[in-house]
Amino acid sequence: MRVRYKPWAEDYLKSHPEIVDMDGAHAGKISDWFEKEQPIYIEIGSGKGQFITTLAEQHPEINFISMEREKSVMVNVLQKVFDLGLTNIKLICNDAIELNEYFKDEEVSRIYLNFSDPWPKKRHAKRRLTYHTYLARYKQILKKDGEIHFKTDNRGLFAYSLESMSQFGMYFTKMNLNLHEEDIEENIVTEYEKKFSEKGSRIYRMEAKFHE
Amino acid sequence: MRVRYKPWAEDYLKSHPEIVDMDGAHAGKISDWFEKEQPIYIEIGSGKGQFITTLAEQHPEINFISMEREKSVMVNVLQKVFDLGLTNIKLICNDAIELNEYFKDEEVSRIYLNFSDPWPKKRHAKRRLTYHTYLARYKQILKKDGEIHFKTDNRGLFAYSLESMSQFGMYFTKMNLNLHEEDIEENIVTEYEKKFSEKGSRIYRMEAKFHE
Ligand SMILES: C[S@@+](CC[C@H](N)C(=O)[O-])C[C@H]1O[C@@H](n2cnc3c(N)ncnc32)[C@H](O)[C@@H]1O
Ligand SMILES: C[S@@+](CC[C@H](N)C(=O)[O-])C[C@H]1O[C@@H](n2cnc3c(N)ncnc32)[C@H](O)[C@@H]1O
Repeated sequence: MRVRYKPWAEDYLKSHPEIVDMDGAHAGKISDWFEKEQPIYIEIGSGKGQFITTLAEQHPEINFISMEREKSVMVNVLQKVFDLGLTNIKLICNDAIELNEYFKDEEVSRIYLNFSDPWPKKRHAKRRLTYHTYLARYKQILKKDGEIHFKTDNRGLFAYSLESMSQFGMYFTKMNLNLHEEDIEENIVTEYEKKFSEKGSRIYRMEAKFHE
Repeated sequence: MRVRYKPWAEDYLKSHPEIVDMDGAHAGKISDWFEKEQPIYIEIGSGKGQFITTLAEQHPEINFISMEREKSVMVNVLQKVFDLGLTNIKLICNDAIELNEYFKDEEVSRIYLNFSDPWPKKRHAKRRLTYHTYLARYKQILKKDGEIHFKTDNRGLFAYSLESMSQFGMYFTKMNLNLHEEDIEENIVTEYEKKFSEKGSRIYRMEAKFHE
């Protein structure tokens, strides 16, 4: 995400340890951090947080985690949490590579990936959030019937993800190859989605689970 | 396929039993029907046969079967076989539902589905050539490493097939979500593909295999 570097972001985030984990303080005990014991949904790479904060507002019966590694965008998520007065969302400012440090096996019910960085060059494939090493992390922390919900405007990343996920033993339970012409009733638009769909880009979306 | 009914089609096809099977004469012994022992590729629903006859001409090292239930279009396939002087292709004029009568288990190396009828109504899903009952037939006749190559202009059928095939335990080895903008070098255009791509429709294509 192209955002101005904000030198104050780190201090601001650190001054709200009740909502933001900056250093793994809640690693391995995420569920205890929330007021209520409820299913956990995570978004990885939340950007400025429009999606996850709207979802959290609509679903008080779910506990949400926003995972985003860039402090300068994470501050926007925190601001939205305050503006909406949300108590069912926590923020982890770290790289998705650390997922298994934070979450216990089978602790999570759903993972959202929205407009993940496409890394179009083949030699960067392993950075894509649907590369098999990431899928292995997701599988470990997801409950047996857990779901991954993925949307993007990037045709190459979507095609790649269909291959990568099916090869890893995942299957698709919902598939939209042109979301905004099909099924936007319940759709919560992300910042990137707004920008790209206004430019006329097609939006792809899928829901997926692991076999077994 | 909307084609004029041709009352003479049946007699014409029947008069060439060396190429066309109208009544299951070669059921269970397809491999013996060919001159040479070579891998077998089938196309199901060949229509007028542009695709499979072009492919057969390019690949003398493969034995091809065109399976098409409509006699009035099958005559066009037969005509092309004569025009091109092909000896590595046979025609089965029957419904795909009979596949397992014709082919032995693991006899086939590849199945092509091109612009299969979309059957958009949910209550007709079981007629789609990627419905799980058809996938089970394909799995039975395909060799362990056998492939299904599928293309269509129909977004709904493609999305459905991604779900249905992955749910059945298939995975995708090649995925084009806009074939004509990506990778048409080796692409053999079918009659339907020509018509729909000229109208500006996007063409979807995948290659798939069975897990295990
Ligand atoms: C293209 S933006 C999309 C933001 C938002 N989801 C949207 O749709 O508007 C991708 C975001 O993912 C974050 N990100 C990328 N890789 C990440 C990783 N491995 N761990 C955590 N965040 C990541 C980036 O910092 C960026 O904010
Ligand atoms: C839409 S047309 C496409 C023809 C050709 N593949 C093309 O791309 O131009 C579909 C064809 O499949 C045939 N077909 C549909 N269902 C079939 C089945 N169950 N068994 C055999 N042929 C079938 C139809 O008769 C029709 O000719």
